[in-house]
Amino acid sequence: MRILGIDPGTACTGYGVVTGDDRGAFSLVECGVIRTGARDPLPSRLRAIFEGISDVIVRHEPEALAVEDIFYAKNVRTTVVLGHARGVILLAGEQCGLAIHELPPAAIKKAVVGTGTASKQQMQFMVTRILRLRSVPEPPDAADGVAAALACLMEVRIPSRAGGQRFVSSAGPRAASL
Amino acid sequence: MRILGIDPGTACTGYGVVTGDDRGAFSLVECGVIRTGARDPLPSRLRAIFEGISDVIVRHEPEALAVEDIFYAKNVRTTVVLGHARGVILLAGEQCGLAIHELPPAAIKKAVVGTGTASKQQMQFMVTRILRLRSVPEPPDAADGVAAALACLMEVRIPSRAGGQRFVSSAGPRAASL
Repeated sequence: MRILGIDPGTACTGYGVVTGDDRGAFSLVECGVIRTGARDPLPSRLRAIFEGISDVIVRHEPEALAVEDIFYAKNVRTTVVLGHARGVILLAGEQCGLAIHELPPAAIKKAVVGTGTASKQQMQFMVTRILRLRSVPEPPDAADGVAAALACLMEVRIPSRAGGQRFVSSAGPRAASL
Repeated sequence: MRILGIDPGTACTGYGVVTGDDRGAFSLVECGVIRTGARDPLPSRLRAIFEGISDVIVRHEPEALAVEDIFYAKNVRTTVVLGHARGVILLAGEQCGLAIHELPPAAIKKAVVGTGTASKQQMQFMVTRILRLRSVPEPPDAADGVAAALACLMEVRIPSRAGGQRFVSSAGPRAASL
């Protein structure tokens, strides 16, 4: 199974494509970031993100898209602008017919590290270890995208692992209530 | 000049296409709403909104897109979900090469009614009157889309009308700071 994980951001959207086989071995296919110009107007930044993600999907043909939830940011305005970016990312996945999973940050941490309150360093350490990489995926946003993909794959493999913190797929009850 | 005005919404996105001539006469070309299923997952609702707006753009070929700002809603979660809808709307306009204007609700009210604190009824009355319609555009979301288009046209015609409440086009300083 091949999953595209995304950490949405208006300035920098991180992504990672990860595969998992039947024996529970995970491999990193590609990771990176889509950067947009700080002085570009929002619509053109959204277009860059949409086209960047669509391009990754066309190149790697993942079965599913795992996107980090953003309902927890401190600054409302930042969160709302981030919602715009997340909107075009979900659209890119939907247009390509991918199954879409929305993952709360705590659920990603729990799946990858074992605790929902793991630090960024612990996350990066475990991502590097699980994927047998020589170094932490850079920049950090790319590592966050990889973590989302990895968490989604582990959840598919070991459904009980996330415990009470179940991931919410788009077909689930929460998305339906939006 | 022909402008597509939009009032973004996850469940119901209102739109109106309005033209204005050199003599300051405005005409309503079409208005309506794009409704999405309440039980549909968010990505498929976003796709419906994106395709609906893209379809209106292809049919009427407006020069510009006027979208209501949503940074003022009371409920953060609702506002963030609305941000997703707004994201795919801006993307539709950007992909079609339209000039994009983001209008704060108060600026729309000021342009159409003359005061930024106008009520919904006052807005609907003025929209109906300015466009010489027999009745208020229905449903209310469609009327809000029409008001956004009208406000944008009036701003283009009488730049001083909005006073201190200048509209922010995507090329403006505010969008650049996002």
